Formats: sequence, C-alpha cells, structure tokens
Amino acid sequence: MSSAHRIAVIAGDGIGTEVMPEGLRVLEAAATRFGIGLQFDHFDFSSCDYYERHGKMLPDDWKEQIGGHDAIYFGAVGWPDKVPDHVSLWGSLLMFRREFDQYVNVRPARLMPGVRAPVVRRDGSPREPGEIDMVIVRENTEGEYSSIGGRMYAGTEREIVVQETVMSRVGVDRVLRHAFEVARSRPKKHLTSATKSNGIAITMPYWDERVEAMAKEYPDVKVDKFHIDILTAHFVQRPDFFDVVVGSNLFGDILSDLGPACTGTIGIAPSANLNPTRQHPSLFEPVHGSAPDIAGQGIANPIGQIWCGAMMLEFLGHQAAHDAIMRAIEECLAPGSDAPRTRDLGGQASTSDLGKAIAARVQA
Amino acid sequence: MSSAHRIAVIAGDGIGTEVMPEGLRVLEAAATRFGIGLQFDHFDFSSCDYYERHGKMLPDDWKEQIGGHDAIYFGAVGWPDKVPDHVSLWGSLLMFRREFDQYVNVRPARLMPGVRAPVVRRDGSPREPGEIDMVIVRENTEGEYSSIGGRMYAGTEREIVVQETVMSRVGVDRVLRHAFEVARSRPKKHLTSATKSNGIAITMPYWDERVEAMAKEYPDVKVDKFHIDILTAHFVQRPDFFDVVVGSNLFGDILSDLGPACTGTIGIAPSANLNPTRQHPSLFEPVHGSAPDIAGQGIANPIGQIWCGAMMLEFLGHQAAHDAIMRAIEECLAPGSDAPRTRDLGGQASTSDLGKAIAARVQA
Ligand SMILES: CC(C)[C@H](C(=O)O)[C@@H](O)C(=O)O
Ligand SMILES: CC(C)[C@H](C(=O)O)[C@@H](O)C(=O)O
Repeated sequence: MSSAHRIAVIAGDGIGTEVMPEGLRVLEAAATRFGIGLQFDHFDFSSCDYYERHGKMLPDDWKEQIGGHDAIYFGAVGWPDKVPDHVSLWGSLLMFRREFDQYVNVRPARLMPGVRAPVVRRDGSPREPGEIDMVIVRENTEGEYSSIGGRMYAGTEREIVVQETVMSRVGVDRVLRHAFEVARSRPKKHLTSATKSNGIAITMPYWDERVEAMAKEYPDVKVDKFHIDILTAHFVQRPDFFDVVVGSNLFGDILSDLGPACTGTIGIAPSANLNPTRQHPSLFEPVHGSAPDIAGQGIANPIGQIWCGAMMLEFLGHQAAHDAIMRAIEECLAPGSDAPRTRDLGGQASTSDLGKAIAARVQA
Repeated sequence: MSSAHRIAVIAGDGIGTEVMPEGLRVLEAAATRFGIGLQFDHFDFSSCDYYERHGKMLPDDWKEQIGGHDAIYFGAVGWPDKVPDHVSLWGSLLMFRREFDQYVNVRPARLMPGVRAPVVRRDGSPREPGEIDMVIVRENTEGEYSSIGGRMYAGTEREIVVQETVMSRVGVDRVLRHAFEVARSRPKKHLTSATKSNGIAITMPYWDERVEAMAKEYPDVKVDKFHIDILTAHFVQRPDFFDVVVGSNLFGDILSDLGPACTGTIGIAPSANLNPTRQHPSLFEPVHGSAPDIAGQGIANPIGQIWCGAMMLEFLGHQAAHDAIMRAIEECLAPGSDAPRTRDLGGQASTSDLGKAIAARVQA
C-alpha cells in the first residue's frame, strides 16, 4: 500500500450530508480493492449550520486545517433560508477556489446508459450512450466573478452599480493550456472556445486572441469558437459535435450546467476544481447543490458524489480505480440492471441502497 | 387609410438582402388588406459592403437620415471575412440600440406547428405546438455590454484586461417594468428573472433587489428567479414552465438564442428592439444573422424577417394585421400544408417561393 493520501471531507449542507457517506463507501471499496491508502479527515465547517453556530462559514485557521491535504472531497454548500447564497458561497466554496488557486474547473457531460437525454436527434430519435461525450473546462478564479466594483448614489434614482470583469494573461493562458492538453489527450482532439467578442467587446476579444496564440502551439488540436448565445443553441441542437469546450468563469459555469442538462445527467454530474500545480489541494464536488427541497428524506441520488470520488482518484494517480468506479456506475444505471434505482431514475431506492450497490460492484 | 408610417428599411449583409424582399412583400399584402399606410425608405448603410466602400459602417448623418422614422425594419449585419464582428456590430446594430435608446429587446420562443423541437418531454414524447410559449425580455443598452474598460501591461506576461458591467437604477427598472407589464398582459402572468447573484456578487444582487422591489407593485404577477446556469438547464428540461423571462443584456442574449433553439425556431425567430417611449424609432430584426454559409443561394427561410414585420405592425398599433401574418405563417408551416418548404424545413423551395405563399395567405 502506498503512503496514504490525506483527504479533507466536507459534507456541507442538505443532501451533501446524505450523499457523502455513499461517496466514502465507494472510495473505501476502491481503496481496498486497489490497495490505495486513503485517510479521511472530516470537517464540519463550510456549511450553513456552522454559520448559524459561529456567525461565519469557516474558522479563522481553515487554511491550516485543510491546506495541507492532498484533496478536498466536498458535498454541497448553501441553504438560502439560513444564509444568503452570496454569503455562504463567497465565504466557502468560492474562497477555496481562489485561495487554493484551483484555476481549472472540469466537468464532463456524457450520455450514460439508462439515463434519458431530453435532447433528441434531428429526426426525433433518442441519442445513444457514447453519442454525447464532452468535457467542459472552466476558468475558475477570475473573469466575471470578480470582487471589484460597488454602488454609487445608493437608494436614489441615480443609483448605479458597477462590477469589473478581470482577465489576466496568466489566468487566461493557464486554463487554456489545460484545455488544450485535455483536448490533445482525447481521440477527437477538438477544442471549442466560448466567446462573446462581438458584444463584450473588451475582455472577450482578448480571450479570443489568447486562444489563437496558443492554438499555434497545438497544431494537432482542431480549434473553433462560438459566441455563447449560439453555442448554447448548438449544445441543444448538436451536442454530439463537441469534445472539449473551454470558457471563462461565467461561460464555463453556464455551459457546465447546460451540457449535463442536455445529457440528462445534471443530477449526477461531477466537477473537479483543480490546482494542477498541486501546490494546494484540489476540490471535488458534485454539480448538484444542497437541494433543500428533497433534503432529509434519504432519496438523493449519490452518483454525483461517487463520480467525483472517481475523478479524485484519477487526479491522485489511480486510473484503474477511477475506471472501476465508472464501470460500476454504468452497470448500475444500465437498463435491465437489477441495481436499485433512486426516485430521479424512476425507482424507490434510498440513497444508501444505490451507494451500496455501486460499492459492491467496485469491490467485486 | 391612416397617414403612412415611415419605415426605414436596412437589409444589411448576406441573407439579410434575400429575406428582406419577402418581408416587404408580406408587409405590403397586410397593408393592402388592412388599409395601413406604409412608406418604405431603403438605406444601403449598416452593411459590410458599405464599410468596404466607405471605411465606416454608417454615414455621418445617419441619425438625421433614419432617426425620424417610425420604425427600422432590419435584415442582418455582419460578414466576418470583410469586417470583424465587433467593428461591424458596434458600428451599427449596437449603436442603434444605444443611440435610439431601444432599451427593451423582446424575443418570443414558441413551438410552431410543423417545426420539430429538439427537446422532448420527460417520457421521450415530442412536445406539441402551444406547449412552449415564452417571451424573453432583454435589457438592451447597458449591463455587460459596456464600453468602459481597457488593457494594461499590453503584450507582457503581466497583461491584464478589465471591462465594467454597469447597471443603473433607471436602466434596470425600465426594462423590468416592461417585463412585468408583458407578464401581466398574458394569461399565465408568470415572470422569471435570470440572475447569478451567487457568483456575480455585486451587480446581480442589485438586479435581484430591483426585481423584488418592483414585484410589490405587481401582486398579480407570479415572480420567480433562477441563476443563469440552472436556468439554461430548465429551458432544456421543462421549457413549458416558462412564460415571460427577463434578463440582463448578456443573460437575455443567451436565453433568447437558447429558447428558440429549444423550440427548433432559431432560424425563424424574430426580435424587437423597442424604445417604448417612441421618442426614437424601434428596430425589428430576425434573430438569425447574415449566414455567410448559405448566402447568395436564395434558400434562406424568410419567416424570421416576416415574423419581425408582424411584430412591427403590432408595435405600430395594427394588431389584426399582426394576427393575420402570424396565422399565415402557421398555416404555411403546418404539417400537411401545401405551402412550399425551404431547405431547413425539409423542402426544396426558394426564399421567395415561401415568401409569396405567406403573402398570398395574408392577402386572402
Ligand atoms: C451580434 C451580437 C452583438 C448581438 C448581441 O449580442 O446583442 C446578437 O447576438 C443579438 O442577440 O442581437
Ligand atoms: C454556487 C455558485 C456560486 C457556483 C458557481 O457559479 O461557480 C456553482 O454554480 C458552480 O458552478 O459551482
């Protein structure tokens, strides 16, 4: 057994606390089977419950507590009835992304067996697993998510609010490089850049410029670009066209919900917030949120959390363990499988029924 | 016959010049049938051809030339091989929106008979005409489309580019009021606001605040809000949920392509750039662009241009003429209709074949 990877576990709010045990169950099964050392340290901060007790989302020494870990395995944060989203999120998740310089956010959107996609082919027939398989690569630390700006003439008719979008050469180039590398590693070697240089005519032409410059270093990668408005239309009309799609913080945010929505997997999609330099921990979280509407019932689908675990193991160098988890997920989803199905999949199974079924297949 | 409305006609580039004659043909048919006076004045500027001849998109006195008209009937502008988009668009269309203070952009997304929608119901069955019927109301003069910002340390590793998003009380409130009024006028009285206040944490919370404030004046309108990322997912998963959707300049831009993409009507969707005060002319343009890939072949579908004409007549006070054009369009699209179908509709008809068929039905 290799020396143990130290994983900071943050379940967070709502269904985060329900899917997390299943994620851990599957990780433990994979660790046993593949002889991977995993040490889990649990933290109760970065949740709205913690905020209610302490008046803040994080303890003052949060960086010391989790900054030395190899990865953060994250559930979901946010509970608007307790804490406004912009407080809970800027006070935790978005702060981790910045402070740990997790400058790449990676989200796959794949048609999975047994999951019906709401978008069909031109002739109305359903799309098949394998037909849509894209990876959205999102800039994760700057761009439209800036903390610079403010309000003037507050409370009057002349009130005006401004916010800066900030793009730096360093920030843009490093995420583009990551995206080009991901594209190069895949069979189709096709990279699509999301832009809006015809309307957002200062920052976005700069983004395009950097894409063009870097494309020269990757002659083997086929590059194209679309304005974000028509790009969202293409996601619906011909999602099979895309391979790797790179976007700014905001455009990546939008596309990485829209992509999984088109494949019907938004409830089970994973997301990786990466610091590829490994100077700080990377963070792995499902795309779904804390889901106050179904929290507390034990019916949430744990696959998003489990899929995140697979991505985390891959990032930590354990490809075979990643592949085994993904196979187990696909086996359980496949039509005709005897695995329990949660409500979103048309069944009655509980969160842990499905978690156990996946863990059993990973172990086997 | 009432005194004539003066319409400035700008065909622009590419298929704009091909669909415009059909739009005019149908307007003339409606004018004859309903006794509406329409005077058409044609202008060759605001096209990339004009730019190639004059080194600019518009003559210096463009405002005098078209500012006194009652409406601008617009085709499409842009031809990237001749003029970069941000030059051609900021030098014409986006300038009209600003200078004529066309602060509301309205775009319907409707399932039409005979048009297959790429998004299906949860059970995989196709959606029916009438099932999706939304109107996207977009802020059209400020927000993310600002001209403030710039570049520092240009050409170096420290290069940084910033652009302001600007929201004013006046700018936000006036488009919200328009959206609330549109919602109030419709049977469902349901208004959805697009936001991203959890991430874009300065301007977007302000947007939310103004929505909440105005909602108090419209107790009969049901209001909700979604973050733009999940909102795009909902457009795909349950487009039938939406009625009127209001968004900032950028979010409205995205949603008003995505909505028509979900209904399969992006090639035929219209758009109205309105100055509701009528101090300046409003502008009516199809959502599709100049389409360099099919330009010059006479195969473009003219319905977008024709539908715009209907919206223009409605704005000018001629509801019956609007309704007659819409009925003619729907009759021609209906499955089993003997009307000619253009290539995008699975037929071989030319742009003018379809235009003539619609005009004939309007006249009848
Ligand atoms: C061409 C472009 C600048 C424009 C916009 O973004 O407003 C277009 O997409 C539109 O929606 O009219
Ligand atoms: C919760 C929100 C701030 C966050 C984001 O916009 O980044 C989320 O949508 C995501 O994509 O992780």
